Amino acid sequence: DTIKNFFRTVIRDWIFLALLGFIMAALSFGMDYAILNLQNGQMSLFDLVSPYHVTLAYLVWVGYVVGLILLSAVCAHYIAPQAIGSGIPEMKTILRGVILKEYLSVRTLISKMVGLTLSLGSGLPMGKEGPFVHVASVVASQLTRLVHGSSGGIFENESRSGEMLAAGCAVGVACTFSAPIGGVLFSIEVTSVYFAVRNYWRGFFAATCSATLFRILKMFSVSAAVTVEAHYQTNFPPQNVFLPQELPIFALIGLICGFAGSLFVYLHRRTVLFLRRNFIAKMIFQKYWLLYPIFIATFISSLSFPIGLGKFMGGQERFSHTMKEFFVNCAWSAPTNNSYSCGNMTSSSDFDITHWTGETGNYSPFVTLAVFQSVYFFLSILASTLPVPSGIFMPVFVLGAAFGRLVGEGVFTLYPGGYLSGDIIFFIRPGVYAVVGAAAFCGAVTHTVSVAVIVFEITGQLCHLLPVMIAVLIANAVASYLQPSIYDSIIRIKNLPYLPDIPHTTSLYHQMLIEQFMISPVVFIAKDSTIGDVKKSLESKKRIRAFPLVENLESLALVGSISRGQLQRYVEAQLGTKARFAEATRRV
Amino acid sequence: DTIKNFFRTVIRDWIFLALLGFIMAALSFGMDYAILNLQNGQMSLFDLVSPYHVTLAYLVWVGYVVGLILLSAVCAHYIAPQAIGSGIPEMKTILRGVILKEYLSVRTLISKMVGLTLSLGSGLPMGKEGPFVHVASVVASQLTRLVHGSSGGIFENESRSGEMLAAGCAVGVACTFSAPIGGVLFSIEVTSVYFAVRNYWRGFFAATCSATLFRILKMFSVSAAVTVEAHYQTNFPPQNVFLPQELPIFALIGLICGFAGSLFVYLHRRTVLFLRRNFIAKMIFQKYWLLYPIFIATFISSLSFPIGLGKFMGGQERFSHTMKEFFVNCAWSAPTNNSYSCGNMTSSSDFDITHWTGETGNYSPFVTLAVFQSVYFFLSILASTLPVPSGIFMPVFVLGAAFGRLVGEGVFTLYPGGYLSGDIIFFIRPGVYAVVGAAAFCGAVTHTVSVAVIVFEITGQLCHLLPVMIAVLIANAVASYLQPSIYDSIIRIKNLPYLPDIPHTTSLYHQMLIEQFMISPVVFIAKDSTIGDVKKSLESKKRIRAFPLVENLESLALVGSISRGQLQRYVEAQLGTKARFAEATRRV
Repeated sequence: DTIKNFFRTVIRDWIFLALLGFIMAALSFGMDYAILNLQNGQMSLFDLVSPYHVTLAYLVWVGYVVGLILLSAVCAHYIAPQAIGSGIPEMKTILRGVILKEYLSVRTLISKMVGLTLSLGSGLPMGKEGPFVHVASVVASQLTRLVHGSSGGIFENESRSGEMLAAGCAVGVACTFSAPIGGVLFSIEVTSVYFAVRNYWRGFFAATCSATLFRILKMFSVSAAVTVEAHYQTNFPPQNVFLPQELPIFALIGLICGFAGSLFVYLHRRTVLFLRRNFIAKMIFQKYWLLYPIFIATFISSLSFPIGLGKFMGGQERFSHTMKEFFVNCAWSAPTNNSYSCGNMTSSSDFDITHWTGETGNYSPFVTLAVFQSVYFFLSILASTLPVPSGIFMPVFVLGAAFGRLVGEGVFTLYPGGYLSGDIIFFIRPGVYAVVGAAAFCGAVTHTVSVAVIVFEITGQLCHLLPVMIAVLIANAVASYLQPSIYDSIIRIKNLPYLPDIPHTTSLYHQMLIEQFMISPVVFIAKDSTIGDVKKSLESKKRIRAFPLVENLESLALVGSISRGQLQRYVEAQLGTKARFAEATRRV
Repeated sequence: DTIKNFFRTVIRDWIFLALLGFIMAALSFGMDYAILNLQNGQMSLFDLVSPYHVTLAYLVWVGYVVGLILLSAVCAHYIAPQAIGSGIPEMKTILRGVILKEYLSVRTLISKMVGLTLSLGSGLPMGKEGPFVHVASVVASQLTRLVHGSSGGIFENESRSGEMLAAGCAVGVACTFSAPIGGVLFSIEVTSVYFAVRNYWRGFFAATCSATLFRILKMFSVSAAVTVEAHYQTNFPPQNVFLPQELPIFALIGLICGFAGSLFVYLHRRTVLFLRRNFIAKMIFQKYWLLYPIFIATFISSLSFPIGLGKFMGGQERFSHTMKEFFVNCAWSAPTNNSYSCGNMTSSSDFDITHWTGETGNYSPFVTLAVFQSVYFFLSILASTLPVPSGIFMPVFVLGAAFGRLVGEGVFTLYPGGYLSGDIIFFIRPGVYAVVGAAAFCGAVTHTVSVAVIVFEITGQLCHLLPVMIAVLIANAVASYLQPSIYDSIIRIKNLPYLPDIPHTTSLYHQMLIEQFMISPVVFIAKDSTIGDVKKSLESKKRIRAFPLVENLESLALVGSISRGQLQRYVEAQLGTKARFAEATRRV
């Protein structure tokens, strides 16, 4: 019995959290595997048919994407439409105490997982992180029911399930990037307003369990050499990756990303509302709802067709490759005789940037990067309006990295030889700029600071800590004055029942005086007011529903309030038709 | 006027936080410089006199330490005794809403800064981090007064100054280790129970400003090569620093550190209470209060005398060197022909471990490490009882690192050739064990998870993320079941007016039934009880101060409660001396 009690008091929560972590790691691993195979399937098919005819290749390329998206949409539509979209806005709402039971059902879980695998397998610009937060939360919620046996009803404890859901959110983010610390902080920032430090460890423990299993699984599946690698491991030197003189440029990146992030949120909201309100769009797409995904999937996949426009935009490549190219520790724009050119810094076997610079260096990376960004910016927004499970974090991350790389290459072109200090040459490292841009843009769109920590864990390095922190803070500051975060924006669009945020405090609030938001002069009724005064007050202020009542006109001492209805009845009794008849009768 | 308003609403808080960061960076930089010079001064003096006579060298060595400690103690005693000790327990109390004004005065600031410089200059095992949190909080508090002009009184706003103080704490930790993220999280964990996410950015912004200035200052003072280095930069490869098979060993380190950390907190409290309560200690040390620092300083500095015992314990070296040796990426115990031996991995110019292994490798590093740890364990506790400003974090960090290194060297000895997987050799890296040990022991003593983040920032690497997280979580779990954190322990010792923590939740609480903490059978008075029953109840339950009153003995429906006093007066009136006399008189 002592053992049983020990189990109940001490061990059970740990086991529960460990289980949550392990399940999520297994799910994440399995889904990653399926997604990778789906994505590779498209390339294999393409390679198979492209020798025969371009049109055939095009049809196969586009058909594959459209097919997967359609399947995903059908799956989401018929199994559980709650699976559509990111899931973070809904979790945010649920964690504020609103009960949205259908969002946490097994049905939603299946719909979300199958749909997400299919939609990510299509290779459209979508992310895994938001939906995975949703998946982890459903798993946590179902586990709570299983372990504790209570199936709702009066024994359901709100604060307990809240704690478990919060741990679920943390694990969801942590799994996606194998970033246990950043994941916990991100989920706290995104979902909570106040946060209990005593429950801090839950998220960390579950996320660590998840990361442990994930890495062990990876070790047994992939070759030993990549056992314990960060997601997009960078290989900058531990010291001197930037000069203090570059810090203002990083601050500028933060500033621009702040504005661009707000624009992204704004355009996303306008697009969604346009599709919902526009007469033609409504008629076509809501009646034949499968038309919209077909249309958008065809459009986006056509743009990325490798033989067409795709060759300027890494059409054949997926996020993981693109990100590695953005973060690489060399300068794309460096001529081959420069010691910091990519040819000299990397071995070509594991690395290829020819779709940015052309096979013979015949495209300018500035042009390809600029085109990629502007196209990708709108495609990400379009893709996020599809009725399939999809996240927004990863596309935003790629966009930010592309922007940072562009700026970095620009600065590098200004100082191609680096800066000599003492006997050390400091090269401008566009890869660091890409990391900074990715963090700043994500920070601006999601309104989080902890994205910086996620970036450190994703790249596995901390040498770029200071530039990243500076840019993220500035981007956050700018973005939070201009637009809500993408998640709050979606909450607004979806009209979810959500308590608004407590605004950020500034010292202004502490010095605000009541007179600043009171009106004056105040309309009031005095004990010695005449009936005429009362009538005038009632008529002049139609919208005031209760009048303050004061002792007399000199002292103005408040004695209470009186409602418009009471006053009206009183005035009616004194001056109304009946009263006048009575008075007339008396006088006759 | 619009500009003025913009300044008031948007910019002022940012300027305030930036200013706080910059001031703290400058203070930290200046103090580091002074401390370094004081420590080097001792070595120079020692080198100057040691050729003449050992006794002279000993006297100079010990005299220097005793002198500095005495100066520090006198300074703390006469300027402001509030400066003594760490400061974190006091800040924790203040942030919970207790007003301890004298802890935030300019006088305390001066006393703490001068005292801290002197005591750290002496080279005793003390840390800078706790006192620096205190210093930063005083600066934040004084800045608030300056910027906002309110000098207390009714316009003082508690929540505003609380926010500013919290930012101050964050900057204090961040400055000490140039760890902006870990610093913010650590200060949140240590000082707060609930934490507003909307004020998250304050700490990050101030800490980032501080880190920026600190690094710029460092660039101009030291050579360019070390511009932007982490505090104790490690140089493990980014991948494969550990095998999944090693994870259980790391978990074991966490477990042991959890127990050792609790022991540390327990012994620290016993020592302080012994000194306060023991008759002889009280008589001697409280009457002649300068005797105690002289005694302890002499004792500790004698042990570290380089020609005596000190040569086995790195007596000549300071923390920064010791830490670098613990974290170094090679095995001390490896024979010179092993490719992972320190001779093969590092250049001897910047590195020297001969005081651990002997000039010719004639000491076993296992013995020196074990001796170092056990001696250092008690010396750290002793040093922390001195009446000078001193922190506990750094000594604990060193202790943990030494323990980790010891375990790591042990494991290395078992597998000196490493583990061959594919065509890659995985060496056991004792340096990783040292990092893990340092984090786990610190986590156990301070009850924080964020110490893991501080460790990543201190070492500038993330490759050891998983082992560190696992060990820190386990150490935390064990320690929090055994002892309070060192800071809570000091709060208890000092009897600071502190609201207790809300306990960690486990799902048990949500399933607890009222019957589990109610007593049965319940003593009660019924409306139909006889006076005899009432009297019996009163006599049998002397400690119950109020009795439940029920409708009748069958229904047991509660109608209210009645106090012992009322019942006693009633029984007295019916059965007391007076009543009996009255009855007797009546019957006569």
